Amino acid sequence: MPQITPKILAFDVFGTVVDWHGSIAAEMRLLYPQVDGDAFALAWREGYQPAMQRVRSGELGWTKIDDLHRLILDRILPRFGLGDLPENERRALNRVWHRLNPWPDVVEGLSRLKRRHIITTLSNGNIGLLTDMAKHGELPWDCVLSAEVFRAYKPDPQVYLGVAEVFDVAPAEVMMVAAHHEDLAAARDCGLLTAYIERPLEFGAARPKDVSPVAENTLHARDFNDLAGQLGTNAAPIGDSDD
Amino acid sequence: MPQITPKILAFDVFGTVVDWHGSIAAEMRLLYPQVDGDAFALAWREGYQPAMQRVRSGELGWTKIDDLHRLILDRILPRFGLGDLPENERRALNRVWHRLNPWPDVVEGLSRLKRRHIITTLSNGNIGLLTDMAKHGELPWDCVLSAEVFRAYKPDPQVYLGVAEVFDVAPAEVMMVAAHHEDLAAARDCGLLTAYIERPLEFGAARPKDVSPVAENTLHARDFNDLAGQLGTNAAPIGDSDD
Repeated sequence: MPQITPKILAFDVFGTVVDWHGSIAAEMRLLYPQVDGDAFALAWREGYQPAMQRVRSGELGWTKIDDLHRLILDRILPRFGLGDLPENERRALNRVWHRLNPWPDVVEGLSRLKRRHIITTLSNGNIGLLTDMAKHGELPWDCVLSAEVFRAYKPDPQVYLGVAEVFDVAPAEVMMVAAHHEDLAAARDCGLLTAYIERPLEFGAARPKDVSPVAENTLHARDFNDLAGQLGTNAAPIGDSDD
Repeated sequence: MPQITPKILAFDVFGTVVDWHGSIAAEMRLLYPQVDGDAFALAWREGYQPAMQRVRSGELGWTKIDDLHRLILDRILPRFGLGDLPENERRALNRVWHRLNPWPDVVEGLSRLKRRHIITTLSNGNIGLLTDMAKHGELPWDCVLSAEVFRAYKPDPQVYLGVAEVFDVAPAEVMMVAAHHEDLAAARDCGLLTAYIERPLEFGAARPKDVSPVAENTLHARDFNDLAGQLGTNAAPIGDSDD
């Protein structure tokens, strides 16, 4: 096997870095205990791909994830008995996506990976959201890249190729890190390396996710510490020849 | 005087955060001791505004600073007896802008400011350059914003207003921090707060710069630690009322 020496590690965020389901369910239990927080988190996230599809298809002009989250929120609130939530509470609740908690391995794993690689977000979340989240979770990013920079949502190739362009490297010098095989498949189609991260509880403890390996991925890791170990073992220091 | 409570501190980089003159002169002395490194650094930087003006005017399409630096470099090399420098050395030398050293107060000052504010670059330098520079100098940015994100060079209003838009705040909640009065004047025209930083040696010890205060700036600080002190004393914690 050739040595794996990505210069850039580009991270999917929702589900891969942070536990959106657990964080939203916990906040709902605290603020609106009468609501099923688990179902609420799932319903909110379910609107995510269809909302982005409205942008991808051109039905909506460029719209940030903050605004898409708000559109979805307004639509689901009545279903959960919160149809008369006042504007200030809607605004505050919508920002829960800015304060999602990282999975337990993330801060240590990123800190290890940062020693030998440039670590950047590559999320459909907007820059402000990702920056607030990094401050909240003490995520030590070298750079905050977002679909907002490229004005296109993953899996649009512009997003994956855009990272290589920003850092002036070949696509094969970038590794996409994600807990979602679709994201990795689209990155692979653009020539990026890929690392799958197991996040079996992404949708909550009641709905464990199939985290079986897919042979096409460059690496398959339990979590970020496992990824750091695999890259540390297999990778030559940056700048070394890759023969 | 009303309390000053910027949520976002947006930093100019070349000259304000890093010592471009000293870093380039030092690298030239090391690699090409026959060249006057001081004059070389000044000549390279002199081409900077005219090169960006070619983009602003539309003569050139969108061009990253890395590529503008290279255009200028190729033009000045013959003047310094380096007209036959091979391609690989030109490429390596051009990346000196990625490894400029911060002024001595910067890392401590930024770390203090980061506790109460979002600290972001707001530079005409491209994202890859700023990211490499942050890694080189251990600059603890919360976010890396660049003209590249807005596809416009300062002092274009899009750049200053773009920061407020990215973070979903009013322009008056953003403070531009720079060692250049023109940059601050343009930010002020967009409604941003401004902090001037004295960098008397920006152009080298032989050419001390006039760092006199300009009354229109919100704050005038010797360096980043002084700025942290002034904001710490005057500013209420973020989220408090600003009455």
